[in-house]
Amino acid sequence: MHHWGVLSLFLLSIGSCLCQYKPTWESIDSRPLPEWFDQAKFGIFIHWGVFSVPSFGSEWFWWYWQGQKYQSYVNFMEQNYAPGFTYADFASQFHAEFFDPVEWVDIFASSGAKYIVLTTKHHEGFTMWGSKYSWNWNAVAVGPKRDLVDEIATALRKHSDLHLGLYHSLFEWFNPLYRADADNHYKTNVFPTTKTLPELYEIVNKFKPDVLWSDGDGDAPDNYWNSTGFLAWLYNESPVRDTVVTNDRWGYGSICKHGGYYTCSDRFNPGHLLKHKWENCMSIDKKSWGYRREAKLSDFLTTEQLIGILVETVSCGGNLLLNVGPTHDGRIMPIFEERLRQIGQWLQVNGEAIYNSSAWRVQNDTATPGVWYTVNTKKNAIYAIFLSWPTDGYIVLNDPIVSASKTQVVLLGNKSVSWESMSPTGLKVHLPQLDPSQIPSWAWTLRLTGAM
Amino acid sequence: MHHWGVLSLFLLSIGSCLCQYKPTWESIDSRPLPEWFDQAKFGIFIHWGVFSVPSFGSEWFWWYWQGQKYQSYVNFMEQNYAPGFTYADFASQFHAEFFDPVEWVDIFASSGAKYIVLTTKHHEGFTMWGSKYSWNWNAVAVGPKRDLVDEIATALRKHSDLHLGLYHSLFEWFNPLYRADADNHYKTNVFPTTKTLPELYEIVNKFKPDVLWSDGDGDAPDNYWNSTGFLAWLYNESPVRDTVVTNDRWGYGSICKHGGYYTCSDRFNPGHLLKHKWENCMSIDKKSWGYRREAKLSDFLTTEQLIGILVETVSCGGNLLLNVGPTHDGRIMPIFEERLRQIGQWLQVNGEAIYNSSAWRVQNDTATPGVWYTVNTKKNAIYAIFLSWPTDGYIVLNDPIVSASKTQVVLLGNKSVSWESMSPTGLKVHLPQLDPSQIPSWAWTLRLTGAM
Amino acid sequence: MHHWGVLSLFLLSIGSCLCQYKPTWESIDSRPLPEWFDQAKFGIFIHWGVFSVPSFGSEWFWWYWQGQKYQSYVNFMEQNYAPGFTYADFASQFHAEFFDPVEWVDIFASSGAKYIVLTTKHHEGFTMWGSKYSWNWNAVAVGPKRDLVDEIATALRKHSDLHLGLYHSLFEWFNPLYRADADNHYKTNVFPTTKTLPELYEIVNKFKPDVLWSDGDGDAPDNYWNSTGFLAWLYNESPVRDTVVTNDRWGYGSICKHGGYYTCSDRFNPGHLLKHKWENCMSIDKKSWGYRREAKLSDFLTTEQLIGILVETVSCGGNLLLNVGPTHDGRIMPIFEERLRQIGQWLQVNGEAIYNSSAWRVQNDTATPGVWYTVNTKKNAIYAIFLSWPTDGYIVLNDPIVSASKTQVVLLGNKSVSWESMSPTGLKVHLPQLDPSQIPSWAWTLRLTGAM
Amino acid sequence: MHHWGVLSLFLLSIGSCLCQYKPTWESIDSRPLPEWFDQAKFGIFIHWGVFSVPSFGSEWFWWYWQGQKYQSYVNFMEQNYAPGFTYADFASQFHAEFFDPVEWVDIFASSGAKYIVLTTKHHEGFTMWGSKYSWNWNAVAVGPKRDLVDEIATALRKHSDLHLGLYHSLFEWFNPLYRADADNHYKTNVFPTTKTLPELYEIVNKFKPDVLWSDGDGDAPDNYWNSTGFLAWLYNESPVRDTVVTNDRWGYGSICKHGGYYTCSDRFNPGHLLKHKWENCMSIDKKSWGYRREAKLSDFLTTEQLIGILVETVSCGGNLLLNVGPTHDGRIMPIFEERLRQIGQWLQVNGEAIYNSSAWRVQNDTATPGVWYTVNTKKNAIYAIFLSWPTDGYIVLNDPIVSASKTQVVLLGNKSVSWESMSPTGLKVHLPQLDPSQIPSWAWTLRLTGAM
Repeated sequence: MHHWGVLSLFLLSIGSCLCQYKPTWESIDSRPLPEWFDQAKFGIFIHWGVFSVPSFGSEWFWWYWQGQKYQSYVNFMEQNYAPGFTYADFASQFHAEFFDPVEWVDIFASSGAKYIVLTTKHHEGFTMWGSKYSWNWNAVAVGPKRDLVDEIATALRKHSDLHLGLYHSLFEWFNPLYRADADNHYKTNVFPTTKTLPELYEIVNKFKPDVLWSDGDGDAPDNYWNSTGFLAWLYNESPVRDTVVTNDRWGYGSICKHGGYYTCSDRFNPGHLLKHKWENCMSIDKKSWGYRREAKLSDFLTTEQLIGILVETVSCGGNLLLNVGPTHDGRIMPIFEERLRQIGQWLQVNGEAIYNSSAWRVQNDTATPGVWYTVNTKKNAIYAIFLSWPTDGYIVLNDPIVSASKTQVVLLGNKSVSWESMSPTGLKVHLPQLDPSQIPSWAWTLRLTGAM
Repeated sequence: MHHWGVLSLFLLSIGSCLCQYKPTWESIDSRPLPEWFDQAKFGIFIHWGVFSVPSFGSEWFWWYWQGQKYQSYVNFMEQNYAPGFTYADFASQFHAEFFDPVEWVDIFASSGAKYIVLTTKHHEGFTMWGSKYSWNWNAVAVGPKRDLVDEIATALRKHSDLHLGLYHSLFEWFNPLYRADADNHYKTNVFPTTKTLPELYEIVNKFKPDVLWSDGDGDAPDNYWNSTGFLAWLYNESPVRDTVVTNDRWGYGSICKHGGYYTCSDRFNPGHLLKHKWENCMSIDKKSWGYRREAKLSDFLTTEQLIGILVETVSCGGNLLLNVGPTHDGRIMPIFEERLRQIGQWLQVNGEAIYNSSAWRVQNDTATPGVWYTVNTKKNAIYAIFLSWPTDGYIVLNDPIVSASKTQVVLLGNKSVSWESMSPTGLKVHLPQLDPSQIPSWAWTLRLTGAM
Repeated sequence: MHHWGVLSLFLLSIGSCLCQYKPTWESIDSRPLPEWFDQAKFGIFIHWGVFSVPSFGSEWFWWYWQGQKYQSYVNFMEQNYAPGFTYADFASQFHAEFFDPVEWVDIFASSGAKYIVLTTKHHEGFTMWGSKYSWNWNAVAVGPKRDLVDEIATALRKHSDLHLGLYHSLFEWFNPLYRADADNHYKTNVFPTTKTLPELYEIVNKFKPDVLWSDGDGDAPDNYWNSTGFLAWLYNESPVRDTVVTNDRWGYGSICKHGGYYTCSDRFNPGHLLKHKWENCMSIDKKSWGYRREAKLSDFLTTEQLIGILVETVSCGGNLLLNVGPTHDGRIMPIFEERLRQIGQWLQVNGEAIYNSSAWRVQNDTATPGVWYTVNTKKNAIYAIFLSWPTDGYIVLNDPIVSASKTQVVLLGNKSVSWESMSPTGLKVHLPQLDPSQIPSWAWTLRLTGAM
Repeated sequence: MHHWGVLSLFLLSIGSCLCQYKPTWESIDSRPLPEWFDQAKFGIFIHWGVFSVPSFGSEWFWWYWQGQKYQSYVNFMEQNYAPGFTYADFASQFHAEFFDPVEWVDIFASSGAKYIVLTTKHHEGFTMWGSKYSWNWNAVAVGPKRDLVDEIATALRKHSDLHLGLYHSLFEWFNPLYRADADNHYKTNVFPTTKTLPELYEIVNKFKPDVLWSDGDGDAPDNYWNSTGFLAWLYNESPVRDTVVTNDRWGYGSICKHGGYYTCSDRFNPGHLLKHKWENCMSIDKKSWGYRREAKLSDFLTTEQLIGILVETVSCGGNLLLNVGPTHDGRIMPIFEERLRQIGQWLQVNGEAIYNSSAWRVQNDTATPGVWYTVNTKKNAIYAIFLSWPTDGYIVLNDPIVSASKTQVVLLGNKSVSWESMSPTGLKVHLPQLDPSQIPSWAWTLRLTGAM
């Protein structure tokens, strides 16, 4: 007979925890969301990894090429690489030679975002930090030879109003240990035990994120991933137990139902108010999260469109997590930088209608299309954000209840404007002539005080 | 004794030419510029070559690295390449795998440009066509393995209103035959005889360009290059003798003095009217003509700035040749595409003030800054282009002589506008409220008819 | 509180084993060595791996470069590779494009060897088979993209007289899980549990080796590696429990003391008879096991030297395991092929003195230097192998006891030779004139029958 | 009209030459061969170039791949390289990082060779020196980044008894200037005028070779190449006019007929005495001159075979030029080194029968096969070299006329041996017992003095 004795893979101190949360969804879901997240409204998502080397098609490059064997991906490889070239071979070309985390954070901050979420490990399994559990398949060992997560985290900490978020994929397309478990219909759990969970503990302890953005359940149930066990630790004992927020992607069936805030689906944007805090994650490039070289100008959302989406999302109670895909050599393309800085210019003028705001009783105006409301209860201000400029000199807002004596209307970035009551409800606001070089011309905000 | 006899390197038919132009500057300079060029006003310059592979610093990469040995270039190579890596080694990475000439031409056409000028060979000596005189150092033999000049020329010919221009550098930094001649103080001419001139004949005969944009005299006199001999052939006998225009960079001392139109210096923009036709060649990237990866958003001129320069240049009698640097994999970056398409949007509305226009008696308004004039004598129209929108509702034009009965003023893209005479001269034009989504907001044009 | 429950990493059928051997050295050591091994006498060792790509210095390249930081290795990398080039990057250059296992086995068979031992995983950790436990760091995923172990095993099985041996390193220099255990002074065993042991079970079950050549204990005790547990399984239950032999490298302190046959140290060659079966593993290249390009002719042992070592080793009761290092593109260098084929030519003539022989009562002749004895008891033959040819026409053997009537002497490959008794003991053998093209001239064998 | 004036490409001093030789074959052929060459007997040929990078198939790799499109070459590229990989791309992998000219020369000297001939430029056109006429396609600019010819020449000059020879190919498979001339049926001569001849002057002036080994006429006549013009300069005026020898490959029809010594065909070995001095150029690898990785041991001639060819060649009045192909990283493979050093060992003992010898009146013995004669008239010695060792103790030489009183016979490396006259002619020589470790056993020489 032979034994290996008790496997004490990872010794976790169990000792003295006053464990508020239990490893059940009921208990986990009962935790209130830390306030900062709803106040932040706007974050930057960053999809960066080995997929940034081919930078073709999608960050799902590997799967589309060798899993699905999509013809365009197969052709791309056949036409541009030697036979036998593997996905792992891309890693050595992931140089990041132009990567400057201080400059990145400067761009993110300039956009007005309040948090960033970085792919620390996408479904390819490549860890962007020097993980002990991903030997020779991490950014410190090959490619950049730098701890990219650590560098970004460090640069971020110099900005007191920026929160760090870490994206982490549970499953890995081609990890043979994962595939063996999958072949066993998730009755075995070698993979989460030796890979996923050790990694999750590692990044939380090392980088102390305020957002842990889980993804990629691989259609496996949360008990395979031991998600509630991990979240209980995260909420009870981890160094970020008081500030961390998580999302809802913790196993088959948990999405839009359990965990922290809801993401529901990629580019989720319901267009009406939701009761549970939610996030709209979407990407400037309409077709990909990772950088793809073949993207045309027409594939990128315009600043106007992006601000429209931000306004709609916030008005309906969501946060916007807007994605950019950096290049393999560590750059954020100028077209992305331009979009982000322009959003920031707009928020410089209109930010008070966004940050710390709440959903108002009406989301978009019942009479004039393209007008979205938010409210700041502390400031007793209602904000009406309109997405196109009327050429006839005035705009009608149907839903606010105004008072001739008390209500004041200001065009943000400009000045008080005159208005008149409408019957039976609402008001008509007169607009000034504007020089587009002086005020951002993608959307405009009217602040109503003394109105309801 | 030994002879090689008479070297009949290149047998040129001398036969029956009615040679109007002699190989002297006096004769060459007497040729009138073909009309199309002055009417075109706006062209796109394309700097593409092996320098697009490192795409760092400048298209002068090779020279700055190994000629000048600038520290930043030396460091870049030491930090990113193996010892012994040569400039020639970059060529095999010049893949152009995303290069689609039809798409390029679509972008160029969308910008409103009427000609393009492509670097067929920069100072590096790499020929972008399959030159017989540049063995193993041309785009058909190594790298793209395609005749890039031919592909662009072919795609261009499908656009009847786009003219083909070819940039060609006389000297080559590191060509040992050139350097040997230079060491001999240009008393020997092995290099132009066996390399430059055969190449020039080759590209003219093969691609039939309407612009031959010469550059890079290497401080050697024009008789070393045999420039007048070549130009006499070009103007008398070449297949493009009737349509071709050339510039003024044909040897030390010829610039701004001899040849075709004047370029004088890079980014030449005198700000006043010149008697001789000239061209302002400049680049969207303020610091480089070739693509450089490290460029930040702030390094690119904005659409507003570019339109301002176009307006000023045309108003002073010049053409604008606006440069973009494609990538080594054959793409025009979205930020460039955006700039070009936006200029095109502006020209869609305002083009009649640019194309086929002439300089007016006044270039910029004597009272209101930022107003530039052009004239179209066939249409009896004066154009006043203004670069910022007044917030007080009107603009004053000091220089036109108006007539209350005959003068009509139209805001291009909008409608007739009312105006009133000013004393002692000029007029005051009343402006409407504009929706920026309907009319380009980078500059606006007033067309005056019935004025002088 | 949180638990991961019982980790059932690897479910091993425990069921119905009649377990002869217990997981103790006493029990393990009591197993008799399967007979085939002592009869085989001569094997080929193959050191092949990612280290075959730099093929510089040693198969310990990685450690000497980045562990010890030996200057010559650091210089080699600095002079020939880009900064940031990692050891893992070598893997993609491990193409094996010329690898033909049938041809390899043909060469091994031609040498007269009866077993081969292949490095399935050296200290670098790269598995030469498609291991589930070495994701992206195995020969199926990167580099050759072939299961090299499987291909060699398959080719070998077509030769009924060749046995398969697998070399396997316990420790891995740079595996972070190993290093973490080492930092814990081997009090934790994450590494053997999740990596080494799963691998060992995998290769035994998959390839069914007759030799399991363990190496690289990393100074960790055998209980860290759970060696006796594994060996009990190997001897009791594995598919090769009846035929497999192992060596003595199973943990700190086990070498030359426990396990199967003894290897004691590299190039172990005691020069006298040992009681326990032993093996002399050594290499044609005096300075390296892996292929190294800078080796000069003088670094290779000559065929004469190699045959001398084989003769001495066998005479003293050992087996010879002679190493060759293939190239990264899958070739066995001609100089190695020549040595191996020449040994084979010699064994064609002299093999009956080697295979199935035993040590005689005397190892080397007490009077004439360079004469080594073996005996084949079944054939009642004593063999005297002499390493230099006497120019005076005869050789004296001091130790055999001869009988004028019964003793017969034959020069192998030639014919019976005449002899005369010496006093007080031994005999003097007369030698014929030889044509070196007809009989191998590296060593010669006299077979004595009717002698003692 | 336009002229380029008189092309004075290369100004050659014509001045004061007492020009002994005229540019006609009659005159060129009248020059006596400098004596050193016939005395040297044995040289080493070195085929090294960009073809050493693929090192597959043949030094004609490029032509077989892209000219002939042989399937095995096309497959090799498709299976191992990315689409679009060009032959020129190999150059950057030609690192020569292990190249040590001192060590090379040591190996060459150890072989007993008296001259070496290096491919300074093979048909691929890549110049192994930093030619001014081969920009970016020479070893100083790309790949090794060293002047390989200069380094070898410099190392060679330290060995007073080694002569430098330079191989140079007239034509270049893919040079577009050559191909244009070929398309013109060699009526134009742009290629030799601007490329071949300038190169030939360059290497002679720079490296001062004692052998100029021309090759590759491309089926073009010698007047296309201006061969007699060049040779007249070489013999009259060049710095090596007194010592240089050339071969016969100077244009279609000149081979085996004009120039210096005859090479006639590759591996020319007539087996009988020729009147004109000739050279047998052949290669250790039976199938290729350039290094090819796939060569098996059976593809290499053995030392015995090589010595046999040397003996036969010299006996018939030829020189042997024995080729080795170094690797792209600058090594001479151990199997080549072994062959060369073993020939040197043999020449240490038997060299007096080779160097400075002449053909005797009989080449091989009329009675005993495998016996070849040479003579040294200054020493009054006849040499009989026999290629196999008789097992019956004696050898018969049928052709020498001996004298019982005067004739002495010595086995080189051993001692005087006894002999007896045969009737009607010749002698029978008694041979001693030999220890193969003391005297090379590939061939043996009997020196007869006092014989005719």
